[in-house]
Amino acid sequence: MTSAFITFEGGDGSGKSTQLELLSGWLEQRDHSVVLTREPGGTDVGVELREIILHRKGFLAPRAEALLYAADRAHHIHTVVRPALAEGKVVIQDRYFDSSVAYQGAGRVLSEDEVRDLSLWATEGLIPDLTVVLDVPADVQRARRESTRTVYDRLEAEADDFHERVRDAYRRFAEKEPERFVLIDGQRPAEDIHGDIVERVTTLLG
Amino acid sequence: MTSAFITFEGGDGSGKSTQLELLSGWLEQRDHSVVLTREPGGTDVGVELREIILHRKGFLAPRAEALLYAADRAHHIHTVVRPALAEGKVVIQDRYFDSSVAYQGAGRVLSEDEVRDLSLWATEGLIPDLTVVLDVPADVQRARRESTRTVYDRLEAEADDFHERVRDAYRRFAEKEPERFVLIDGQRPAEDIHGDIVERVTTLLG
Ligand SMILES: Nc1ncnc2c1ncn2[C@@H]1O[C@H](COP(=O)(O)OP(=O)(O)OP(=O)(O)O)[C@@H](O)[C@H]1O
Ligand SMILES: Nc1ncnc2c1ncn2[C@@H]1O[C@H](COP(=O)(O)OP(=O)(O)OP(=O)(O)O)[C@@H](O)[C@H]1O
Ligand SMILES: [Mg+2]
Ligand SMILES: [Mg+2]
Repeated sequence: MTSAFITFEGGDGSGKSTQLELLSGWLEQRDHSVVLTREPGGTDVGVELREIILHRKGFLAPRAEALLYAADRAHHIHTVVRPALAEGKVVIQDRYFDSSVAYQGAGRVLSEDEVRDLSLWATEGLIPDLTVVLDVPADVQRARRESTRTVYDRLEAEADDFHERVRDAYRRFAEKEPERFVLIDGQRPAEDIHGDIVERVTTLLG
Repeated sequence: MTSAFITFEGGDGSGKSTQLELLSGWLEQRDHSVVLTREPGGTDVGVELREIILHRKGFLAPRAEALLYAADRAHHIHTVVRPALAEGKVVIQDRYFDSSVAYQGAGRVLSEDEVRDLSLWATEGLIPDLTVVLDVPADVQRARRESTRTVYDRLEAEADDFHERVRDAYRRFAEKEPERFVLIDGQRPAEDIHGDIVERVTTLLG
């Protein structure tokens, strides 16, 4: 089977988990061997780092935060993603370096370029074959989050204008690299979104 | 008071802790305000990362390890070292980026340049005013460790030729940057070594 590395991006509550599951089921029905994974937290080291990063009460220096994400990423790509791709599997991943670039960039402390370079060093330059961006306005994301949960992590708790900057960043990335990205209006019904994703994935897998 | 950032380097068991303490006492007697600190582990985040790095049983991808050290370093320099220097203190630190470069380089997976660049990014380019290297042959280091302890971490447990490569790396660094480094024969009595260090520190503090 053809291997492929597909990542899902978008704000918190944009519908990534929903679409990951739908795509994974669709691929499995067509006899693809699928690995569903995520960052941060896709390995045992990652779970420990996720605790430090997302649930920390005190201050964390911005570069330290970026480096922890990169460390998780390095370990995850080396031990999970690359081996799966080498075995001809389709790896579907919830968030990858575009998340770091979009979120860190939106925080305006580090430049997008330095965050991207750090991830590329961490992963020895592994770039997805396809990146699906679910584009949803920040207020809609918030409404969806509020309808399902009452506890938020540090990033989710940021104000709408932060999430709107993240959204803008993703739109810019998609415009800049149209071969890699597919930008999808995430406000439509989940089944319609799934249809668009399947179309693009069908082309990818040939 | 003049602030200064002084780091101690050398193999495990080369006598760093012994000399740090002697220098710190000497400086305090002369009314310097001294901060003694170390990497990894000089902050609360660092303590958690030190656990992951040094006592991990399973495999840790080499770039992930380098990034974890860099994350600890970024947080430590930002929250402990820079504020202390800004207050005119003398910061004496047990290991800094030269350790990462020497140990990672000796492991021959990552290049010295990439490890150094990573640390410089993490710390926004903070370079010590003085770096003391305690130069002790690997077999002597081992004999010293064996005389005091029976439990070793992952790096200490490496064979003598690994520690000899680390030693060579430090000697090269000292030769290349003689203004920053002082290379000291660590096989002499502790008081003699302390005397040499005090001489150099006296010049530094003017
Ligand atoms: N197309 C859609 N239209 C309306 N609601 C949706 C749609 N897709 C998902 N949702 C709902 O929005 C909420 C968030 O969806 P989901 O968990 O898939 O998003 P997510 O991007 O994975 O969020 P997180 O970043 O928190 O993991 C859920 O309650 C989900 O049922
Ligand atoms: N100049 C010296 N001559 C002989 N023994 C020494 C000397 N300095 C230190 N020692 C002894 O060597 C051992 C290691 O010293 P020390 O703990 O200072 O080294 P270290 O570099 O801090 O080691 P580690 O890397 O494990 O922290 C101790 O038992 C110490 O008493
Ligand atoms: Mg999700
Ligand atoms: Mg010591």
